[in-house]
Amino acid sequence: MSSAPEAPTTRIATERPDDVIIRGKSLCRDLIGKFGFTEMILWQVLGREPDKGDTAVVDACLVALMEHGLTPSAVAARLVYSSAPEALQAAVAAGLAGVGSVFAGSMEGCAALLARVVAAPDAAAEAKRIAAEHKAARRPVPGFGHPTHKPDDPRTPRLFAVAREHGRAGRHLAAVEELGRAVDAAVGRHLTINATGAIAAVLGDIGVPAEIMRGFALISRCAGLVGHLHEEQAQPSIRALWRAAEAALPYAGPSPK
Amino acid sequence: MSSAPEAPTTRIATERPDDVIIRGKSLCRDLIGKFGFTEMILWQVLGREPDKGDTAVVDACLVALMEHGLTPSAVAARLVYSSAPEALQAAVAAGLAGVGSVFAGSMEGCAALLARVVAAPDAAAEAKRIAAEHKAARRPVPGFGHPTHKPDDPRTPRLFAVAREHGRAGRHLAAVEELGRAVDAAVGRHLTINATGAIAAVLGDIGVPAEIMRGFALISRCAGLVGHLHEEQAQPSIRALWRAAEAALPYAGPSPK
Amino acid sequence: MSSAPEAPTTRIATERPDDVIIRGKSLCRDLIGKFGFTEMILWQVLGREPDKGDTAVVDACLVALMEHGLTPSAVAARLVYSSAPEALQAAVAAGLAGVGSVFAGSMEGCAALLARVVAAPDAAAEAKRIAAEHKAARRPVPGFGHPTHKPDDPRTPRLFAVAREHGRAGRHLAAVEELGRAVDAAVGRHLTINATGAIAAVLGDIGVPAEIMRGFALISRCAGLVGHLHEEQAQPSIRALWRAAEAALPYAGPSPK
Amino acid sequence: MSSAPEAPTTRIATERPDDVIIRGKSLCRDLIGKFGFTEMILWQVLGREPDKGDTAVVDACLVALMEHGLTPSAVAARLVYSSAPEALQAAVAAGLAGVGSVFAGSMEGCAALLARVVAAPDAAAEAKRIAAEHKAARRPVPGFGHPTHKPDDPRTPRLFAVAREHGRAGRHLAAVEELGRAVDAAVGRHLTINATGAIAAVLGDIGVPAEIMRGFALISRCAGLVGHLHEEQAQPSIRALWRAAEAALPYAGPSPK
Repeated sequence: MSSAPEAPTTRIATERPDDVIIRGKSLCRDLIGKFGFTEMILWQVLGREPDKGDTAVVDACLVALMEHGLTPSAVAARLVYSSAPEALQAAVAAGLAGVGSVFAGSMEGCAALLARVVAAPDAAAEAKRIAAEHKAARRPVPGFGHPTHKPDDPRTPRLFAVAREHGRAGRHLAAVEELGRAVDAAVGRHLTINATGAIAAVLGDIGVPAEIMRGFALISRCAGLVGHLHEEQAQPSIRALWRAAEAALPYAGPSPK
Repeated sequence: MSSAPEAPTTRIATERPDDVIIRGKSLCRDLIGKFGFTEMILWQVLGREPDKGDTAVVDACLVALMEHGLTPSAVAARLVYSSAPEALQAAVAAGLAGVGSVFAGSMEGCAALLARVVAAPDAAAEAKRIAAEHKAARRPVPGFGHPTHKPDDPRTPRLFAVAREHGRAGRHLAAVEELGRAVDAAVGRHLTINATGAIAAVLGDIGVPAEIMRGFALISRCAGLVGHLHEEQAQPSIRALWRAAEAALPYAGPSPK
Repeated sequence: MSSAPEAPTTRIATERPDDVIIRGKSLCRDLIGKFGFTEMILWQVLGREPDKGDTAVVDACLVALMEHGLTPSAVAARLVYSSAPEALQAAVAAGLAGVGSVFAGSMEGCAALLARVVAAPDAAAEAKRIAAEHKAARRPVPGFGHPTHKPDDPRTPRLFAVAREHGRAGRHLAAVEELGRAVDAAVGRHLTINATGAIAAVLGDIGVPAEIMRGFALISRCAGLVGHLHEEQAQPSIRALWRAAEAALPYAGPSPK
Repeated sequence: MSSAPEAPTTRIATERPDDVIIRGKSLCRDLIGKFGFTEMILWQVLGREPDKGDTAVVDACLVALMEHGLTPSAVAARLVYSSAPEALQAAVAAGLAGVGSVFAGSMEGCAALLARVVAAPDAAAEAKRIAAEHKAARRPVPGFGHPTHKPDDPRTPRLFAVAREHGRAGRHLAAVEELGRAVDAAVGRHLTINATGAIAAVLGDIGVPAEIMRGFALISRCAGLVGHLHEEQAQPSIRALWRAAEAALPYAGPSPK
């Protein structure tokens, strides 16, 4: 490696013998016992001072995303844990590696579309344009539709209700609803705004940048995986999952000559 | 794979078209907007109904562990992210893989010792025995001492204060203090109860099993890493870290003939 | 972080504008086109000059370990890949996280026992002692037994044949056979020396330290996982695996009131 | 999860009590002791029968990519290992998570461009078009340029020589050279074809699909990381790397009031 002079710095934290300084606050005097975990997440990630509405919206998102049954990510974490029980952290890491573009990533894709609608002079026209583009390209609109939660994702109205209750429903929430109407019209049937679409909207309305939204999914899902692994500690499921996988994907190659 | 009949089940979650059931509660009716994130963690991982004292203690632990500057884990996550920015989740996973026996794991080691003290008929004698065993084996006592936080880890009294304030200081907290006295006497100088020792005690006093304590470190540190990666998105530090690593670990092998 | 002066160095590699030096050899002049991959692995990891017998033994071990069907590790990698196809590397990483104490780790456990047998004045007596200890503790002897490969793991005689053919069968191979006789006598029925036991022996006989043996499993399994993910690229199995996992581990918790 | 009937199968492997079948060959009769590791990789990943030229080209690529000093990936693996020495596999996984779009991924980007050149009726014109497009977009051409290896990456001519020597230099190698001329002309100075560009060409000429090329980088780098961790076992560098990282990225945030 070589080249280009650079002198980056960090504005996050530094330690002293008698304290840890986090974005200018004293961990021991200002944070432990003063901030709840969600407030601390907002402080650590975004440098936000505690605010009841922000915290309520983020709490609702983190609660909504934590658990969704035996997701591919939960199954991967359980398999890795029972193969390597010496390292709980590696099993959580393996599960989180699956919180990617197909699941959590749709949040970012939806956020990018909402940004277009919010920025457009005519929101309804922009929403129609987006729906038409995706239809023409035969691509699903990120944040819409769900294989199980039909006709409507039940998490979405709850997330919107929390945002409204705390006065945090803004232009992104309006934009996702506008987009929903356009999508339904374009496809000719109702597609639900799913939880990642709803979260893209409500996090957008409290000013969370799109590029770090996936981080909130990771924090929430991390806790979900810890729950699965605690159950795995009491009752290993690896044999049952392994057998099921072998049966689900049988060998169809040739036999040796 | 083969053998042993088994019919394991999960008691965590299942999905329905109109809801997600988590340990018997309705995600949409009972949890989103009702539980804070910390309460939800306690529900997901331990099946605990919300309780103000439990929540306060866990909040304090999660706040205390989130951030400690450029830890090896944070550096690893930053290096991986700037090498593979397509996958924020993989960088968080890489960082979490380092939350292992040397750092978070000392929590479990300390919890095991506290369990011995709590179970002993004579706590002071058991604490002395533990201190003597470690001295004889020249092994550090997990949960004691800190390279930076000298003479005392400033997080420890804050964690104890939160536990006391909420009436959750119990036998594990007493045990870690007993053990602290025994350790100081055995080594002949003061060694601080560090944050992982303090957390082992206060989580123990609210009934968190030792084998899943590391999970709480992972949840907290996950959020810490997301903060580091959000900073890395704005200002990549990979070149500076890379150059520094090369300078810190120079090549000392032979030259080609 | 602080303390203790240290000036560590690396003896592995350094780069120059016109070359990369690896353990004192020129990558461009001495290695590319001159060393096969297995020879390069031996050079990189152990600093060994190419040797036909070493290479044959390591080739046999790497070939033997690469693939074993839909292992938990392969299933985890496939699930993560189809959840996050933007990052092939993260899916491989997730799969490798499962190459741990339960599977590959038994190699190290067996190697430790073989070291005892090799070092003992009376190998047969030491082997009996080890078998008796494990029987008394009701612990399986690492490197022995296999759920599918009964009565004998067919990879073991092939690995031993390669070692013998190249004059590399030594005291570790003799030790594992001695231990096999003792184990059979102690349990009162035949338990096969499994592939990890055989590999512990043959790698031990070419001088691979026990603490890095798991690394050879990782290199081999890494290639195995790449094969699974290439198949997953052509034909995603995530839905089939997901459904199978849900069926294998049904929800048995309460319903919401 | 729900929906769409599917009955996927695998053509990779299945186990029997007395054998493991891998793509129709018997592991014990046809592979162990018969195939070298590189041949086995080609069999596992691509279903290729052993061929001296293929093997030589892949050996050269795997040897060329294994090691490049203290890369971000190697540093991450070392930091994770010394933080969690209970899990060598997790440290290797963390390092591999960094073998992504910035480094190994440029191979795929270059392969996509080579496919365009190869498919074009006029290769030189297509190469010029590609160079012009990247110049206009101010994007680097994947596979070209290197911060250290200037003016030329010394690995490239060696890789090309191996391909030529075994009669495997074909249209992709010609295409990357054509593209190199076009890039130099467009930027007005010489930019080297770097190792990932060269590997994209030579793997392309033996028919490795672009989408799995990154897998070869992972296999090779996996071995490189095992070497770093074996050195880390003997001489931990975590303190030196940690201190260096803290110095390289100092805290520049505010102080507590």
